[in-house]
Amino acid sequence: MQLKKIGEFGLIDLIRKKVYTKDKRVVLNIGDDAAVLKCSPGKLLIFTTDTLMERVHFDLRYFSFKDIGWKSMAANLSDIAAMGGIPLAGMVSLGLPKRMKVEQVLELYSGMENLSSRFKCPIVGGDIFSSPQGLVVTISLLGEVEKNLFKTRGGARVGDLIYVTGDLGEAEAGLRVLRKSKAKKNSITKKHLTPYPRVSESRLLVRNLKITSVIDISDGLSSDLHHICEESDKGALIYAEKIPVSQRITKVCRSLKVSPLNLALSSGEEYELLFTLSPGQEKKIEKITKGKFSFTLIGEIRKKEEGVKILDLDGKIRNLKKTGYTHF
Amino acid sequence: MQLKKIGEFGLIDLIRKKVYTKDKRVVLNIGDDAAVLKCSPGKLLIFTTDTLMERVHFDLRYFSFKDIGWKSMAANLSDIAAMGGIPLAGMVSLGLPKRMKVEQVLELYSGMENLSSRFKCPIVGGDIFSSPQGLVVTISLLGEVEKNLFKTRGGARVGDLIYVTGDLGEAEAGLRVLRKSKAKKNSITKKHLTPYPRVSESRLLVRNLKITSVIDISDGLSSDLHHICEESDKGALIYAEKIPVSQRITKVCRSLKVSPLNLALSSGEEYELLFTLSPGQEKKIEKITKGKFSFTLIGEIRKKEEGVKILDLDGKIRNLKKTGYTHF
Repeated sequence: MQLKKIGEFGLIDLIRKKVYTKDKRVVLNIGDDAAVLKCSPGKLLIFTTDTLMERVHFDLRYFSFKDIGWKSMAANLSDIAAMGGIPLAGMVSLGLPKRMKVEQVLELYSGMENLSSRFKCPIVGGDIFSSPQGLVVTISLLGEVEKNLFKTRGGARVGDLIYVTGDLGEAEAGLRVLRKSKAKKNSITKKHLTPYPRVSESRLLVRNLKITSVIDISDGLSSDLHHICEESDKGALIYAEKIPVSQRITKVCRSLKVSPLNLALSSGEEYELLFTLSPGQEKKIEKITKGKFSFTLIGEIRKKEEGVKILDLDGKIRNLKKTGYTHF
Repeated sequence: MQLKKIGEFGLIDLIRKKVYTKDKRVVLNIGDDAAVLKCSPGKLLIFTTDTLMERVHFDLRYFSFKDIGWKSMAANLSDIAAMGGIPLAGMVSLGLPKRMKVEQVLELYSGMENLSSRFKCPIVGGDIFSSPQGLVVTISLLGEVEKNLFKTRGGARVGDLIYVTGDLGEAEAGLRVLRKSKAKKNSITKKHLTPYPRVSESRLLVRNLKITSVIDISDGLSSDLHHICEESDKGALIYAEKIPVSQRITKVCRSLKVSPLNLALSSGEEYELLFTLSPGQEKKIEKITKGKFSFTLIGEIRKKEEGVKILDLDGKIRNLKKTGYTHF
């Protein structure tokens, strides 16, 4: 169905029915000038936003509308995870090209809700406008965190251990495969299209271990490690051989003529967590996460003067360059 | 200075310094994965978002970057006012065309801050990306409101009095003047470029009077009165002669060959408040607002069956049509 057939307010009514929630924390849902929420006494509020724009962040030749919804939500949920928090509620601002169908808009919402409902994070409102130049999806998310559990990029101390969740490289490798093959989806492309935010892992970590800093890998491991070091005023040494490079990218990397390690270091939008742990907790983290989640020790925090380095596969210590995508 | 000269992270550093706040409610400011805030015990949280997009919501031939920043913030603050709330903090998602200069981005922030600082509402974070299709500004705002003071569109009762703040018509008249003259700013164009959100008025109202429903006029008086009636399941009768049509639009309307009344009824983006007051409070509202703020009684709430009507200037009662801009 054409958007103009039901108009702006007709579309809002459809969305309102679709995302209706019984969540008791939502005092006022979609349909008024703003949403109204209860926040938990004693907790801090986390506030974040992220936009995905057509042709900048996604390509409609290989992204379904569900994928776009999912990924927009994932990027925001990942920011809540990076603070140690629990998602609370989301707002969606949608710029829709006139060519879009009502069904496609509802699919976009399905993608968002598919993911957000897993974390009991209802969509409670937003803004819709006609965008002449392609689809624009901005989500703002609220989360909550206990005062003593919230984590920043800035708490790493000398001697802390550097860990990363999951494995790295598939987000970038998947993007390159999709660009080359145009639309062929396979196991490698999943992480670029529908990454999974590490909310559960984050809560497990901050509730049970002495985590000193956390960031989510959205710019790439190398850049994001620099962010932790800058904000913590420290240096770092990581070990190339310990970096959990995805096994599945080996073949792709050969055909792309790039080293899997370098791809893993620069791959953005991984939405894995990079964090530092107080020394002496190595056994505890293994015990807690065993069989449930994957965490890999990749290095340690050093003094600022020592810089941010990598012990390379050839046994030489090199400066770790900030790589990965930057706007402008 | 070109954006590419300092890059994404250089720009974020500049903005971070610019919008740095000492507000005690802000636990963690720009520069991490998300912002962290304290919320007031016992209060409810208000959450809203609004996007302004180049060529859809503004035209760079007559909007300065400061104007764009101001108006983006005004639209969001107005939503907080429409709930009876106090602004708390904002997030900014910015899509920047490569042609934009660093100085222009900072001007945009000046415009936002110029307004938000009047309501002690710091900007605490956001997202920046390269937009090939023109400037896109999305602001998400948080506000707070006492549990017993928050207002919706849905509380109007039969016999309630319908009021509006300020006067109407200049937002639309100003836009038409700007489109015709291209760039000539005058007293009429101010409301289209830099509308002033009625946050103070809203607080005065909800704290001192029996306000039963509120909406901000973003779609136009006629459409927004329909929104109140729909959500309250009521009808309404308003009096054409009582509508506070701006005196300044008379001349423009003559040259545009439109009736000032019709323009005032359909003029969107006014950001005035339309609200209903319990009967018997007419004298109290006059006493409270005298000399400070302007409120005009324009009609009353009726039963749903009576429809939404206007007593026209010719003495005839007509259906009040939903007019004003809609997307799609």
